[in-house]
Amino acid sequence: MKKRLGLLTSGGDCGGLNAVIRAVTRHAVFTYGWEVLGVRDGTIGLLSRPPDVEPLDPEKLDAAMMRLGGTILGTTNKRDPFSFAIADGSVVDRSAEVIEGYHALSLDALIGIGGDGSFAILRRLARQGGIPFVGIPKTIDNDVRGTETSIGHDTAVWVATEALDRLQPTAASHDRVMVLEVMGRDAGHIAIAAGIAGGADIVLIPEIPYRLERVAAHIDTLRRQGRNFALVIAAESVKSPEGHAVYRHHPGGGKSYGGVGAVLADAIARLTGAETRVTVLGHVQRGGQPTPWDRLLASAFGVAAVDLVAAGRFDRMVAWQNRRVIDVPLEEATSGPHLVDPQGPHVRTARGLGICFGDG
Amino acid sequence: MKKRLGLLTSGGDCGGLNAVIRAVTRHAVFTYGWEVLGVRDGTIGLLSRPPDVEPLDPEKLDAAMMRLGGTILGTTNKRDPFSFAIADGSVVDRSAEVIEGYHALSLDALIGIGGDGSFAILRRLARQGGIPFVGIPKTIDNDVRGTETSIGHDTAVWVATEALDRLQPTAASHDRVMVLEVMGRDAGHIAIAAGIAGGADIVLIPEIPYRLERVAAHIDTLRRQGRNFALVIAAESVKSPEGHAVYRHHPGGGKSYGGVGAVLADAIARLTGAETRVTVLGHVQRGGQPTPWDRLLASAFGVAAVDLVAAGRFDRMVAWQNRRVIDVPLEEATSGPHLVDPQGPHVRTARGLGICFGDG
Amino acid sequence: MKKRLGLLTSGGDCGGLNAVIRAVTRHAVFTYGWEVLGVRDGTIGLLSRPPDVEPLDPEKLDAAMMRLGGTILGTTNKRDPFSFAIADGSVVDRSAEVIEGYHALSLDALIGIGGDGSFAILRRLARQGGIPFVGIPKTIDNDVRGTETSIGHDTAVWVATEALDRLQPTAASHDRVMVLEVMGRDAGHIAIAAGIAGGADIVLIPEIPYRLERVAAHIDTLRRQGRNFALVIAAESVKSPEGHAVYRHHPGGGKSYGGVGAVLADAIARLTGAETRVTVLGHVQRGGQPTPWDRLLASAFGVAAVDLVAAGRFDRMVAWQNRRVIDVPLEEATSGPHLVDPQGPHVRTARGLGICFGDG
Amino acid sequence: MKKRLGLLTSGGDCGGLNAVIRAVTRHAVFTYGWEVLGVRDGTIGLLSRPPDVEPLDPEKLDAAMMRLGGTILGTTNKRDPFSFAIADGSVVDRSAEVIEGYHALSLDALIGIGGDGSFAILRRLARQGGIPFVGIPKTIDNDVRGTETSIGHDTAVWVATEALDRLQPTAASHDRVMVLEVMGRDAGHIAIAAGIAGGADIVLIPEIPYRLERVAAHIDTLRRQGRNFALVIAAESVKSPEGHAVYRHHPGGGKSYGGVGAVLADAIARLTGAETRVTVLGHVQRGGQPTPWDRLLASAFGVAAVDLVAAGRFDRMVAWQNRRVIDVPLEEATSGPHLVDPQGPHVRTARGLGICFGDG
Repeated sequence: MKKRLGLLTSGGDCGGLNAVIRAVTRHAVFTYGWEVLGVRDGTIGLLSRPPDVEPLDPEKLDAAMMRLGGTILGTTNKRDPFSFAIADGSVVDRSAEVIEGYHALSLDALIGIGGDGSFAILRRLARQGGIPFVGIPKTIDNDVRGTETSIGHDTAVWVATEALDRLQPTAASHDRVMVLEVMGRDAGHIAIAAGIAGGADIVLIPEIPYRLERVAAHIDTLRRQGRNFALVIAAESVKSPEGHAVYRHHPGGGKSYGGVGAVLADAIARLTGAETRVTVLGHVQRGGQPTPWDRLLASAFGVAAVDLVAAGRFDRMVAWQNRRVIDVPLEEATSGPHLVDPQGPHVRTARGLGICFGDG
Repeated sequence: MKKRLGLLTSGGDCGGLNAVIRAVTRHAVFTYGWEVLGVRDGTIGLLSRPPDVEPLDPEKLDAAMMRLGGTILGTTNKRDPFSFAIADGSVVDRSAEVIEGYHALSLDALIGIGGDGSFAILRRLARQGGIPFVGIPKTIDNDVRGTETSIGHDTAVWVATEALDRLQPTAASHDRVMVLEVMGRDAGHIAIAAGIAGGADIVLIPEIPYRLERVAAHIDTLRRQGRNFALVIAAESVKSPEGHAVYRHHPGGGKSYGGVGAVLADAIARLTGAETRVTVLGHVQRGGQPTPWDRLLASAFGVAAVDLVAAGRFDRMVAWQNRRVIDVPLEEATSGPHLVDPQGPHVRTARGLGICFGDG
Repeated sequence: MKKRLGLLTSGGDCGGLNAVIRAVTRHAVFTYGWEVLGVRDGTIGLLSRPPDVEPLDPEKLDAAMMRLGGTILGTTNKRDPFSFAIADGSVVDRSAEVIEGYHALSLDALIGIGGDGSFAILRRLARQGGIPFVGIPKTIDNDVRGTETSIGHDTAVWVATEALDRLQPTAASHDRVMVLEVMGRDAGHIAIAAGIAGGADIVLIPEIPYRLERVAAHIDTLRRQGRNFALVIAAESVKSPEGHAVYRHHPGGGKSYGGVGAVLADAIARLTGAETRVTVLGHVQRGGQPTPWDRLLASAFGVAAVDLVAAGRFDRMVAWQNRRVIDVPLEEATSGPHLVDPQGPHVRTARGLGICFGDG
Repeated sequence: MKKRLGLLTSGGDCGGLNAVIRAVTRHAVFTYGWEVLGVRDGTIGLLSRPPDVEPLDPEKLDAAMMRLGGTILGTTNKRDPFSFAIADGSVVDRSAEVIEGYHALSLDALIGIGGDGSFAILRRLARQGGIPFVGIPKTIDNDVRGTETSIGHDTAVWVATEALDRLQPTAASHDRVMVLEVMGRDAGHIAIAAGIAGGADIVLIPEIPYRLERVAAHIDTLRRQGRNFALVIAAESVKSPEGHAVYRHHPGGGKSYGGVGAVLADAIARLTGAETRVTVLGHVQRGGQPTPWDRLLASAFGVAAVDLVAAGRFDRMVAWQNRRVIDVPLEEATSGPHLVDPQGPHVRTARGLGICFGDG
């Protein structure tokens, strides 16, 4: 029987989203003969009347589109239909409207690409509204549980590593300590992966509390070994040396992590006398052309998600484990962020290389 | 007790070898206080008298060195000490000299970075000569058993995908069928991964025999759908349409796969009337700057290999499984090439996307 | 008065064509309030009845489109309306139909993006048909006269240099001579620019006849200096050691340069005993994402071409000279290819670096 | 007669410095049979006793070294020997010591790679100390007079353009205004070149004073045209909306431009209600792998500078004009920064594309 699927992207964008959209559409249309409706701007598209959707044409979703960063469907960050901010500043529950929008489209199932936060909302909507739902994990932070890796992380690590690759020669030429602030709201996966790959000397992540004196002592040790420079990579969510979270406040309200790089650069300069400079990568970590791996993972997830719909297996998330695509209960994915394990392989590798975490 | 390690790279080079050399040296020297001797040109360095080695200084193995393709130690391809070709064209067994060279250096253990072919030789040497040996898997082809992935594969997939990224726009502008020949001696892992990531229409790998008529029929189908071009990626080891292996003969003897891309381009042009062009990437797949993942994997493997030596666990290979570094018996790694599984996840993904393998 | 412009791309594609299309359209529509019709597939679009054109919408020609290689309008290589090959193998003059097609569209002027070959045809059409014509130079080969550089060359040099960057480490690791064959039908601009930038030891271009013995002697010199490898870059149009042009014959007739890299690799191996390998970049030199410079040049040319139309200055080509956009008579651009000057700055630079051209 | 050359890099580092060092050394040694001493850390190396120099070996300055960002000789920023800051905070004139250091090395001439600031100092030293001096222009800002372009600019534009390439998709996915702050102390060359190449909507440079209301009005216009996002690129030296220069103060004294991106992002958000995000590229613009053009220019300049020494032509700078290497009096290069011409080709191109400068 010909099915009609809804497909949406939710939460912060990242490399690989368009490759998922392409894979879902091609597999659903070519293999199963179904129809796919792309929902615009995450759940916002289901709030519009009529719902803001577009039929997706697999012929038009070509290789060039797969290489684009971002999502052609648009996404909406931090708009929760269960507590939807309205003009007067108050919040209302608009979940019923989203569910109504879904049903108005006569959809047979909904596939949502999101992170743990989006999944919590989408799962609640699905249960409340009787929506057969399948999730596909994406997040540059790689903090979704139940899968070894999520779409977008590899691309973000690529961009952050490339930045370290470029900072190292100029640091060495000028005898400087370079501080690179990267994304990572709850978890330091980007910072530790790029830190190892880019040859950082010091890696600061929220999972391992640091003391500034340890950082300064390591820089002194490097100097005594004859090194004239140091590379520091810090997740945006590490605390200031005084133990405070560092936020950037957005005009009109709201805040997100941002600025700890500059704080660290100042503090290190004060403590060590070194000349420091800071780079804040920001959203270049999201929008880059997806790496081959992110396109491959996205394609595998897109195909597998359609197969889950065909098999009638809902409330599940596709996942990558042990070089295979599997699926796990969505509940697992939303049970809290997957953090860097302080005893795990990357930390062990980093310590083996002599990388300092500022602890101990 | 202070140990002295030997370290060599063997077989074809690839992205990430220098990152392993750096990680082994840093962990052995910084963490354990050992000494590391780099052996030049694989086992050839142990045949020289005195053996051709250099003490490796962790301070000099910096981030810039980690980014370099190739191996600073050099490597020797297809020189088997058990059947060593000499000037008059005959072969002799020089294994005893290699073993003697090893012992002359008073080494406590040998770490070798290689593929399945190298491991078979190194393991035989180790058993015959009483050499405590640990292996680290590398191969652009990703055909080593016992590990989900090996050093160098991700970089090769990157280079091959980038080539498809560049061929697609010119193919579309000129209504052409582009054929890209990539490496893959026994296995089609590069071709299938890059084919999915780069949006290929047709993927030809040695594990799935193809018929040219199926390929031509798929190109005709694409045309009927309104597409004016097609992208074909083929592993160098796929057979010609007539079923013959296609080799490039090297002056002075020897041959390796090469040329099937041009053969396919001609055959497709003849059968479909399409204008075709061919690109042969060759060794640019080996020498590129390693991707962040290859540097990360290389670092993890280098650290873990040193830990295996410290634990006295020999005749084993470090491996990546399920987001962890483990170790497996070397015997497993040398039990034959790991091929693309025709029922595995990548083939399923590719078929879901509508990619044609020329079979069926 | 509102004008209606025709815009077409002609000849081989290259990086930056879409940036020109975007610039022409935006300047014509935003600044002058004109209309732009994109003609599909070069002059072929004017042969169709009705002519195959599409109105170009500046809002849709966004930054993402500017980054794409190829041309969204399509192009046709080697289809000359003055001697148009038809099915029975004969050629007919269809120039009157092209001119008729142009006038049927009520166009006020035609802007054509092409190389010297395309300009010769387009200029003849313009004079014969009373078409106010402005040319914009593009060619990866950089062989158009009257301009310091043309669109697409910088991107091709980038791709070729990157290939040398990747070949050098693997050459060094394996003691090999690597031969890279790059494009360049009449001129060796890509080979010499990439050869200098990529650190080649030997550069072979059609403008400087070489002798194989000189090449071999230089490789021997490098060996005596302690170098274990060499990088050779050759334009596809250099002759074989025996003095023959090396072509690749296309099924169904026609031929283009191709294959001299393999011929050279064999000859060098025979003469020096070195192990050689060859890479044939082919069309990856055309389709890559345009470099910033090619996008900048394309944007400057597109804007300037529209200004020429506004000023009523036709039969001219926009050009880059001395950090400014100027315009020159089209006659100059079609007076023969601009070759590498054997006494010019790049050759002098190359000789200063010790690069061997195989001459002398 | 065999000469002995001194070679130093001075001022901020950039892509291509190592390619100059390689070219100078190879040409001097291979062509002329001279000797080259690399001076460490700019003029600081001549202050050391004995002077801190190393003989440069052309065999070791290989292609891999040419690809590295930074300078293997080191450089010192903002250390003027005529007013040298010492520990107690006062400044002393140490120029005589530098000159003495030069003569102690029995050098025949000095080649210095620097920008206009460095040249002013080096020229004064040369005249005072009787030092035959030749200059080679480098600066990411491209603000040296007398040459069309300087080493390092193309690489910086590449990095900045790539950042815009990555910001565009995420801006579009999230309906955001992205602000990218790039380098440019006196001149907006990086901002305007990357702005055109990367498809920016708004370009703010110090040469064209802007009003925030104009910027906001342009964003509103884009919205009315259906665009949901905007890209803003700003040179670090543009003033705040209130007309103040925005500095980042370094611990221990000193300041440099920095932070205007965040100021602009806040101001735009307030005025337009748009969600804004900021990226500060910082030193990744300096340390990247040099583009092929920067390596080519660096090679040409290095060779030409040695030829100037051979010809006994001093107090001159090599320069690029009209596709040739020429030389100009150093006086010209130090006569003030070369700024973006508000009526020049890049500004005209930008306006033709519809880019807003916030003026008018």
